[in-house]
Amino acid sequence: MPIPIDSAVLLAAARRGDRRSLARLITGVEGSGENSRTIMSTVYADTGRAWTTGMTGSPGAGKSTLTNHLIRHARATGNTVGVVAVDPSSPFTGGAILGDRVRMQDHIEDPGVYIRSMASRGQLGGLAAATSRVVMVLDALGFDDVLVETVGVGQAEVDIASNVDTTVVVVNPRWGDAVQTAKAGLLEIGDVFVVNKADRPGVDETVRDLNAMVDLGESQPWRPPIVTCVALTGDGTSDVWDAVAAHRTFLERGAKNEERRMRRRSEFYRALMSRYTERATQLIASTAGQTKGDAVANLELDPWTAADELAWEVIR
Amino acid sequence: MPIPIDSAVLLAAARRGDRRSLARLITGVEGSGENSRTIMSTVYADTGRAWTTGMTGSPGAGKSTLTNHLIRHARATGNTVGVVAVDPSSPFTGGAILGDRVRMQDHIEDPGVYIRSMASRGQLGGLAAATSRVVMVLDALGFDDVLVETVGVGQAEVDIASNVDTTVVVVNPRWGDAVQTAKAGLLEIGDVFVVNKADRPGVDETVRDLNAMVDLGESQPWRPPIVTCVALTGDGTSDVWDAVAAHRTFLERGAKNEERRMRRRSEFYRALMSRYTERATQLIASTAGQTKGDAVANLELDPWTAADELAWEVIR
Repeated sequence: MPIPIDSAVLLAAARRGDRRSLARLITGVEGSGENSRTIMSTVYADTGRAWTTGMTGSPGAGKSTLTNHLIRHARATGNTVGVVAVDPSSPFTGGAILGDRVRMQDHIEDPGVYIRSMASRGQLGGLAAATSRVVMVLDALGFDDVLVETVGVGQAEVDIASNVDTTVVVVNPRWGDAVQTAKAGLLEIGDVFVVNKADRPGVDETVRDLNAMVDLGESQPWRPPIVTCVALTGDGTSDVWDAVAAHRTFLERGAKNEERRMRRRSEFYRALMSRYTERATQLIASTAGQTKGDAVANLELDPWTAADELAWEVIR
Repeated sequence: MPIPIDSAVLLAAARRGDRRSLARLITGVEGSGENSRTIMSTVYADTGRAWTTGMTGSPGAGKSTLTNHLIRHARATGNTVGVVAVDPSSPFTGGAILGDRVRMQDHIEDPGVYIRSMASRGQLGGLAAATSRVVMVLDALGFDDVLVETVGVGQAEVDIASNVDTTVVVVNPRWGDAVQTAKAGLLEIGDVFVVNKADRPGVDETVRDLNAMVDLGESQPWRPPIVTCVALTGDGTSDVWDAVAAHRTFLERGAKNEERRMRRRSEFYRALMSRYTERATQLIASTAGQTKGDAVANLELDPWTAADELAWEVIR
């Protein structure tokens, strides 16, 4: 049996800069049990100080390499940086295929940088909720910048990447990559678009396509810039960071507080949903739930009527 | 005000082969209101006859083009085919960027083929649930094969593509594509792997990488085959269809019924969750929910405590 850890002790040690305590604190909030609740309720009032930036885009677009440079640029301004790298859920990976994350280890000796990989399974309430909790902990513990990097371009990834102040969408200069970006629903969430691997052919066309597609949408107060870079060499990555900073300045002059208040309301909604999810899971596992599940599996009762009947005792 | 449509009338007409009625029926079940419920409860007992095949893989991998050929191969066996193509949610698209779907229109004159595009927004209860309902309607109305094609490789897409009998994962012979497939969590769900665009360089390496990664996992009774094809010309696509058929034969000799019973139980769980989601949405919109939401937005109350307090009146 593991020795119970007092969250308050961990929190105090983490605030003093102890990385081992910070790591354990984050492991605590990756779950959604009592321990996680205690930590989150304690740190919540201290959130809202960090600037949070999300990185999304197709697998292989070069997000990790770019993140590495953004850490460097943020550090150059004196800011401390927390990074949350959301890994895919796969029994095949075992960490072995995450070699490109190694690049971020450039900063492993820097006490002003903390990098955390998250596996995308095992969190009750979902990956987006768990990621959000980890970001809040890093924010509350005083990291000036928090970068969130996702793998893939699905709805969960979009949710994660857009639950931040500034969303950076990374694409490559491949024919059709801009169109695929649109297909993946990324055009709407990007505050900054980055064409990485800009030393390859097709960069002008990709920039042109992105510009055209951004201008196709409704005119917004913030017009997302399209920045090119070569993350492998670092060329242009300071422009990416400048674009993030420009977006920050823009928001701080206007919608920042309202956007953050909206995100906090979303968190509340998510927390409520999570309570109900737990309740539904209990119900399904109950004797009544099992009996109805058998009937549904036998095509004797449709799933929706079964759900109504089971929920009726609880929801009035 | 639209004229109310009797679901029973639509259903009867759709069963007689009326495509307009089928389209309206499907529009009905894309939503999750009373009308959707009535239709689904009516058709549920007739489901479980079609063979359902999901297609997933990165945007641009050539899923639509391959699906077009699979329709052709299925038709050659005399089977009728329903296709559900899940489109991205984007105000930018307006259908204009979905040009590759046009390819499927090859079959538009064939009365044995029905193709339906679904937008990925506007469905209460989520896209996976709505897709599942549409697949069940096509199944219940007698389509022998139902193909589901998703865009993107996120969790929602994986959920959709894997909520079928046979899951086909499409990759391209690009360096690292096999690894990206693993990263996206697709190795675990694939029953058949297809390396499309096999006339391009790198196909042998991609096949080798996929083989290696599939063999890295735990040994399973069904070892997913890796098939190469060039969907643009049709070369090798009959091998893809043969692999789907082989997987079907394998399942029909063994786990088919148990797998389907599990999927039906999942549908039940999803229906229960959907009820709770509706309830949570009502609660958030209530006066008490708004008051607590304000406190959360002001950092005066943490979202988890607020959710507990709000749910307390309902969950006992």
